Formats: sequence, C-alpha cells, structure tokens
Amino acid sequence: MKKFINDADAVVREALAGIAAAHPDLRVDVEQQIIVRADAPRPGKVGVISGGGSGHEPLHGGFVGMGMLDAACPGEVFTSPVPDQILAATKAVDGGAGVVHIVKNYTGDVMNFQMAAELAGDEGVEVHSVLVDDDVAVEDSTWTAGRRGTGATLIVEKVAGALAETGASAAAVAAAGARVNEASASFAVALTACTTPSAGKPGFELPEDEMEVGVGIHGEPGRRREKLLPAKQVVALALDAILSAKPLAAGSEAIVLVNGLGGTPLIELYLLYGAVAAGLEKAGVRIARNLVGNYVTSLDMAGMSVTVCRADAEVLRLWDAPVRTPALRWGA
Amino acid sequence: MKKFINDADAVVREALAGIAAAHPDLRVDVEQQIIVRADAPRPGKVGVISGGGSGHEPLHGGFVGMGMLDAACPGEVFTSPVPDQILAATKAVDGGAGVVHIVKNYTGDVMNFQMAAELAGDEGVEVHSVLVDDDVAVEDSTWTAGRRGTGATLIVEKVAGALAETGASAAAVAAAGARVNEASASFAVALTACTTPSAGKPGFELPEDEMEVGVGIHGEPGRRREKLLPAKQVVALALDAILSAKPLAAGSEAIVLVNGLGGTPLIELYLLYGAVAAGLEKAGVRIARNLVGNYVTSLDMAGMSVTVCRADAEVLRLWDAPVRTPALRWGA
Repeated sequence: MKKFINDADAVVREALAGIAAAHPDLRVDVEQQIIVRADAPRPGKVGVISGGGSGHEPLHGGFVGMGMLDAACPGEVFTSPVPDQILAATKAVDGGAGVVHIVKNYTGDVMNFQMAAELAGDEGVEVHSVLVDDDVAVEDSTWTAGRRGTGATLIVEKVAGALAETGASAAAVAAAGARVNEASASFAVALTACTTPSAGKPGFELPEDEMEVGVGIHGEPGRRREKLLPAKQVVALALDAILSAKPLAAGSEAIVLVNGLGGTPLIELYLLYGAVAAGLEKAGVRIARNLVGNYVTSLDMAGMSVTVCRADAEVLRLWDAPVRTPALRWGA
Repeated sequence: MKKFINDADAVVREALAGIAAAHPDLRVDVEQQIIVRADAPRPGKVGVISGGGSGHEPLHGGFVGMGMLDAACPGEVFTSPVPDQILAATKAVDGGAGVVHIVKNYTGDVMNFQMAAELAGDEGVEVHSVLVDDDVAVEDSTWTAGRRGTGATLIVEKVAGALAETGASAAAVAAAGARVNEASASFAVALTACTTPSAGKPGFELPEDEMEVGVGIHGEPGRRREKLLPAKQVVALALDAILSAKPLAAGSEAIVLVNGLGGTPLIELYLLYGAVAAGLEKAGVRIARNLVGNYVTSLDMAGMSVTVCRADAEVLRLWDAPVRTPALRWGA
C-alpha cells in the first residue's frame, strides 16, 4: 500500500487535524470527529447536517459552511458515524428551528442517523431526515437495501443548505432535499479498486483490460464487468442507465455532475464531460448548470460517476445561491 | 493503460471540447488549443497568459477568468505549446497595454514562449515574461536548465492576474510575478509514476516500497529514491529542502499550497497539510493563506508537493482579490 499516512488507525483524525489547520473558519472537534460551521447554531435557522464513512472527501466535511451544511460527522474510512457523534453534531447546530439529516442510503448510516434522531427528539430537537438513494446501477448492494446514495448527495446538500439559509422550516428544507433526490440519478464506472488504509490492499481484483460497470463508492459490485471501452461508450452506458431509470422529457433542464472517484485526473473528467454534454443534448436535455471534478470520491479509485438532476427554476435558484465552503464556493 | 479516453492522439482536444461545454463563459478554440477569458481583450488592461504541456490540470486552463489568466495555451500532454499558438493567445488578449507571459522553466516552453514574444513584438505587442522556477529539488533536470517550475506557478498567476486587474503596467505585473517566484519554493514526492496516453505505460518503475523524493511534474527524477516513510517524515523532508533553499525568518508570513499530483486522494492531502502546518509553526512561520487540493498535477501520479511562498501585505492583498475561474474562485 502506498499512501501518505502515519498510522492506518489515525488517518481520519489526522486528516481532521489538517482540515482544522487549513480552515480556521470551521470548528473541528478532532476527537469526536465533527466539523461545524463557525457561526452555528444560528437562532431560528434550521441546521443541516450530513455524514457517513470517510474516504469520500471532499464529501461531507468540504461542504460545511455558509449556504450548505452546518455540520458534518465523518466516520472512520468506509464506516458509519456513530449515534453519539451524530447526536452531538445535531445539538451543535440546533438553533431552535430543528435539524435536517441528509443520509446516504447505507444500512449503517440509516440506522445510526435514525438512532441519533430519536435521541435528539428525546432532548427536544425536531429532526427531519432526507434519504439519498440516487445510484441507479443496482437495487440492493453490499451495504444497502434499495439503491445506494452517491453523487446526488452534493446537490441535495447544496439545495437544502441554500433553502435553510432563507429561514425555511425544517419540514420544507427536508422536502426540498427529498425532491432533489427524487429528481436525480447517478451511475459510476471503475477502472481500478480503491485501497483502504486498514486493508492495505485493493478491495477487489479487476483485470488490466476490464472495468466495473455500475460500481459503488466503496467498491461495491455493479451490474457487470466488461472489457474496457472508449470513453464515449462508457458515457453512453452511464447515460442510458440514468435516462432509463429516470427518463427526462425533451426540453428538461438539469444540473449535471461529472465526478472523479479520486484517482482519475481532471483532463479525463473534462473529456468525459464533453461526451456527457453531447449525449444529453442529443436526448433533448439542457444542462443548466454543471460541476466537473472530484467531489464524491472513493479514496484512490480510478473511476467516474455521472449524476443528472432534473432542475426546475426553484432548484436552480437555490443552486445559484451563495455558498462558502472549502470545496464549493461562489457568490460569497 | 486504464484511462477514460477515446484516442490517445485526441485527448487534449477532446478535453478542451469538454472545458468549452462546461464553461460557456470561456472562449475555447479547440483546434488551436487556446482558452480565452470571454471579455478579453479589455482596452487598457494588461493581458496575462500562461501555458505549457497538458496533463497538469487544472493548471493552466482552469485558471482562466476574472482576476487571474486572460488566456491559456495547452500543448499536447507533457509537450510545449507551439509559438503560433502562444502568439495567437497573446494577440487575443492584447488590449493595447501589453501582455505578460508566465512561463514554467522547461526548455521547450521557454524557447517557444520567447519566439512567440518576439513575433508579437514584431506586430507591436509589448510582451514581458516571468520565468517560474520554484522547484528546489534539483538544479537542471530532464527537460530543464536550472530549476523546474511547478506549484508556485499558481501563486504567480493569481498575484499577477490580480495586479493586472487593477490597471497596472505590464512591467509592474511581470515584476510582481517575478517577486512571487523568487519568494517561493516547492518540493514534490511521488509514490507512483504517471502514464501518458501516448506511452500507455508508467513513465518509470518504482518498487512497491519506495518513493521518488524530489520528483518533477512529468516524472523527472528527483534527488533520490528511498523507502516509503510515514507522512510526517515525508513532510519533514520536503520542508527541510524548502527552508534550506529559501530560508524564512521567524515571524514571516507565507501562502502554502499542499498539492496533489492527480492520483492522491484529498484525505491524504489534508493529513499532509496538518503536518506541514505543524512543521512551519515550529519554524516560526505563520501560514497566512493556504490551498489544499489537486492544482498542479501530473496526470494520474500518486504524489504530493508542498509550496511555500513568503508573502508580504501586498502579495496577500492580491491573493485575496476576487477571482472567478473554473478551479479557483472567491469574492466574486
């Protein structure tokens, strides 16, 4: 294993110490593994939090800040955050208007967020949850009942965070997040497996001439393995899966994310985006907004995902609203 | 070779088509390989351009926009842009106040930018050049006489671009860029070699338990190979090289870039940043501003670089000035 680490068991805490040093405008509790926006809790503002296993950076810690998340709770690598941790984050951002949990659909995450929500409820904090399950590759997976939550999480967090900033209620913020999830579909392809620090070796074996079609962000199996194809055919596969699962009427507007899984360079992501843009144009879909880069990653996995989110004027307005976080920043 | 490409010879043009689709606010000439800020040329404003071989994305195309570069000319992967291309970019951004070329110190880049500057001069465009040679690992290298230009290029481009935005003269913009370069030192370590699309295999062999200390951004040899070390010792090596080459007085302020070379995930870069911050604090250096991420890359190379730039109040003011580019954006 070749990684810039000191101790496989300390990777998350040491990375959190680095985040704390790099972003003094965030409050980072390294021991409890919580990243909180400096001005939280804000009285009357709904708190928006997310979390999940580490290894998907910048998700979620990189999205904490004005206009997006109020807090993130990273678990150990590919391991759910624990209920106490989520509870502490929930209480840290509760300004009296309630808290929205944005939860990717993995069994451990769902269970632990739900337990934290119940504990918070016992302490008088109103918690609403949004489940993200945008990955259309497979129904049920290694750690998931139903579909996995992946790239759309970023869009859900941006839109919910922007709405919370306007003083909307917790129910309204959660409903907006749920609508974005419902309108989103993602599909990923891996060229290599990722290596967790604790395992020290790739999570699966993939022959030099094959790719995993429909991979999950922890290396979960996809639909099938097949011979490596040219980029435009990879994009065609992904768009076909996305548009079959969630058809878009011609003339629809969409937010599109072409996302690297950590080990794929930006030059390839832009090349892929060109093919995605051409494919969606052919389908009559207008890309109203886009992001190209490494946002929802899988450690060092070479791979990519495409997320297409149907977006109405309200969603676009919330997408465009100012945001100031380590990994997403505009208008502020 | 596992890459998302269609044709090894078309990678740069196809990536440029993707950049054009993703960023309609830039003018991209895919055939001539030039990316120009939409509002260029602006009468009376100095044009700032850079370029070099592709494969280092987001450098340079990702830094075109308000407050930074007016144009970028990407060559083929790891290959200098040609004089005609640089000349066309120079003329495209000349608003009558002259143009500044920011050139990384590689022999082909230096030669071709100089030729373009002479041709532009013949056509009445005043061109000033800034040579970036911040990599303190080695004197002379595979494609370089003197020191290589690497991570500091981003800081030079930001500061020069911000100064140009204020209406400063070409001579002043170039002088500011040169001062930033002079105040900067970088050092890189590779865990793996990168693979160019045309070669189809890694540029060098590196055993599973070794790292290349002082590597260049094209995989040029560094100072030595040695056994893989824990991250904090890797950082200590890098900071020792940097502070030996360009000592910083205790109490100095610095802009620090912890940069991934393309295949290293963000969680490791933050972990490294924590060690860099601790090391510089020990040396009495105050990190006034920082960037952590993949900015000056080497395709899919797993590796990192550290850049330390001594920064006075004027440099910090220009660093903080609004910027609006695909890869760097704040205050706008």
